[in-house]
Amino acid sequence: MITYTSISGETVRVLGLIVEYNPFHNGHLYHLKKSVELINPDYTVAVMSGNFVQRGEPAIVDKFARTKMALAYGADAVFELPFVYCIQDAGGFACGSVGVLHRTGIVTDIVFGSESSDINILNEISGILSSQPHEYTVILKKYLKEGLSFPNARKYAILDYLTSHNFPVEDIRLLEKSNDILGLEYLNYLKQYGSSIQPHCIAREGSAYNDETVTSRLASATAIRNIIKEENIAFLKELVPEISFEIILSEFENGKGPVFFEYMREIILSKIRLMDKNDLLTIYGIKEGLEDRFYNYSRRSMDLDCLLKNLKTKRFTYSRLKRALIHILFNLSEKEIKTYNSQGPQYLRVLGFNKKGQELLSLIKKKSRYPLIPTASQYYQIYKYLLKNQNEPYKKYDSDPTIYMKQINRDFDASNIYSLLYPKKEHAMFEPDKKNQIIITEDKDEKTSHY
Amino acid sequence: MITYTSISGETVRVLGLIVEYNPFHNGHLYHLKKSVELINPDYTVAVMSGNFVQRGEPAIVDKFARTKMALAYGADAVFELPFVYCIQDAGGFACGSVGVLHRTGIVTDIVFGSESSDINILNEISGILSSQPHEYTVILKKYLKEGLSFPNARKYAILDYLTSHNFPVEDIRLLEKSNDILGLEYLNYLKQYGSSIQPHCIAREGSAYNDETVTSRLASATAIRNIIKEENIAFLKELVPEISFEIILSEFENGKGPVFFEYMREIILSKIRLMDKNDLLTIYGIKEGLEDRFYNYSRRSMDLDCLLKNLKTKRFTYSRLKRALIHILFNLSEKEIKTYNSQGPQYLRVLGFNKKGQELLSLIKKKSRYPLIPTASQYYQIYKYLLKNQNEPYKKYDSDPTIYMKQINRDFDASNIYSLLYPKKEHAMFEPDKKNQIIITEDKDEKTSHY
Repeated sequence: MITYTSISGETVRVLGLIVEYNPFHNGHLYHLKKSVELINPDYTVAVMSGNFVQRGEPAIVDKFARTKMALAYGADAVFELPFVYCIQDAGGFACGSVGVLHRTGIVTDIVFGSESSDINILNEISGILSSQPHEYTVILKKYLKEGLSFPNARKYAILDYLTSHNFPVEDIRLLEKSNDILGLEYLNYLKQYGSSIQPHCIAREGSAYNDETVTSRLASATAIRNIIKEENIAFLKELVPEISFEIILSEFENGKGPVFFEYMREIILSKIRLMDKNDLLTIYGIKEGLEDRFYNYSRRSMDLDCLLKNLKTKRFTYSRLKRALIHILFNLSEKEIKTYNSQGPQYLRVLGFNKKGQELLSLIKKKSRYPLIPTASQYYQIYKYLLKNQNEPYKKYDSDPTIYMKQINRDFDASNIYSLLYPKKEHAMFEPDKKNQIIITEDKDEKTSHY
Repeated sequence: MITYTSISGETVRVLGLIVEYNPFHNGHLYHLKKSVELINPDYTVAVMSGNFVQRGEPAIVDKFARTKMALAYGADAVFELPFVYCIQDAGGFACGSVGVLHRTGIVTDIVFGSESSDINILNEISGILSSQPHEYTVILKKYLKEGLSFPNARKYAILDYLTSHNFPVEDIRLLEKSNDILGLEYLNYLKQYGSSIQPHCIAREGSAYNDETVTSRLASATAIRNIIKEENIAFLKELVPEISFEIILSEFENGKGPVFFEYMREIILSKIRLMDKNDLLTIYGIKEGLEDRFYNYSRRSMDLDCLLKNLKTKRFTYSRLKRALIHILFNLSEKEIKTYNSQGPQYLRVLGFNKKGQELLSLIKKKSRYPLIPTASQYYQIYKYLLKNQNEPYKKYDSDPTIYMKQINRDFDASNIYSLLYPKKEHAMFEPDKKNQIIITEDKDEKTSHY
């Protein structure tokens, strides 16, 4: 069942991981080790959120620091998940991350964490979500009409469907756990991309995704960010592996972190306060009266915490609201997001690699139908190449040059905003993405190169 | 020569002043006293910049605090100069401020400070600027073609013109001093509005407009803001009159000041960093390669000071560059500004008044062709009235409802951004302009009313 990719005659197994590492902690290390045990891969690659993460927040330390962590603990190469997918719900996030792994052309297996850790049931449910049998869509529409939010309507529709087809009802709990929801979307997009990548899941250990308290040395990333906010460095040291701890501390000492969501107060509030309701309606997901709430509360909230509390209703989670604030800041329209989600990521941008990873990149360069961007400085050259070749019958790449350009410019935008949030203002002076920073490590001898 | 306005049979003289009071200092008090001595008015009104001033900066304390200062030292009523005129060059600033005074329908005299203090010569030069004789425009165009900035080209064109008509060459110095340049524009706009208001000028005492050092108890507002930045409260006390000092201190204690330009770092840099060059080209005054400079330097400057130093060239003053940053932040287009400058201010918005001022407001309400907005809460009601009456043959007001609405919404926008800059974040929770705050003083017993 497992597909192999042939490199110069040999067969290899390449493990793909979808990560945020915000920051890299003991739970991530556990997951990584278990995944390697399960697959025994020749190479491991990760696709990682850039400077903004799926919770609709800037990452606590930037993508280059987090790439160092990934390489230190087992990734051979790290690709950036384009910004426009980082800050979407489970579906959009999966579209981008599965897209990057699939489009490398060499990943054979994906392993993701899961509360249920039952790939068969996940596959079953995902099958329903993808194939959308008539009976299911009728029930779904009924629940949507009743005013349920989409995730809830979906949950109850599947529950009804599964029950009437004699599935065990307890499987429905999958639709409530964040990792399983993501897992369903990964499976869904593997199907949509027609990918032969083999999915696997392993049980998550320790605290749940959103837990804010720490009960063991396996704390959630949310809890760890709270510990950082409280400047409890001694506790932090217990919850993240050694090299991760050193990288975090070095970033903080260098004035490059921690970066908190609250730092965006003026940026976000000024942006919304200068938009009228029609401007807001052009933004992805802002509709059905939501524009009134954002319009009014942005003008009556003293900070982002206050704004979020004002905006909160049963129907919207805090993560969804924070993502909406990011969509507004970056003027992301419905149309633009739909294009990205129907076309997938248009490039494979390298954030860092080790010696083994370098071999893998050469292979990807040969096999992928999407351009590898080894350093950001080459993005324009690649764009010109795509433009010139787009109508060639035997063209090397499938990328649409216009979408390619939009996606990568969004990455630059995200970094140019992120750099305003570094505690040390001097770091806002450089366009971090254009400085060709890339992390190259050799065995344990880690260094940062600007080539 | 002096026009009088008849109120219920009597004739009165109403002095109009154009002010920023950022903050109100000894020099302002001197000017106010001298103006009253000169005119001996029955009433004194001031049109004052709102929360942003002509140097392209947020005011050091907000417009309500500065209104209190104006009322404490002799103004009977204070009108807000609409935001869209506050942040323009001398021409646009004069268009708005002269417009407000003229459109009250009751101001008989304007007195302004001047380096030259020779109203005859100012009138002469202003005549040339307004009538634009052919000989003058030919020279002007020649200098513009040679690449001179407009103020310089104008200066040399007038110099040539005056010389060839046997004017004394030293009069040209008027075109270099900021108060005289403003004075020329006031005279120009009095002509353009066909106003019968009598202009006067009196010599300025003490430091020049832009002086950053303090040589006497008459320091410039710039020097005073620097002293505030250095927290030299003892020195501040010597440079501003007593009540002004008390108001400033009370604002600071209340967390409503001081507000400095640098506080806009994230707001301005994030705004420009998310604009491309075509977006920048839509902004008033951004053209001829300026878009490249703003695009590139916004992404490579760590703060506003750094950005301004990078942007600075001989051709642009810091004030002009700061105004450009404000235009960008508020998306002010060439077309929009041109409309405002051809139509003038569409309303008379009251920031505060005393008992005498209240009589005056009743009179204005009777005589003016433009609506008085006594509290911001009435703006929409007035808009609906304007809309309903715009095609009536004997309509009460000349305001264009669309322009009226745009102008007042810009005032609200400006206040909603300004409130994000208050040192105490809680003050950002209210829409200050919609809270109907208005300053009403009775004799010396000052109070703030929310009616």
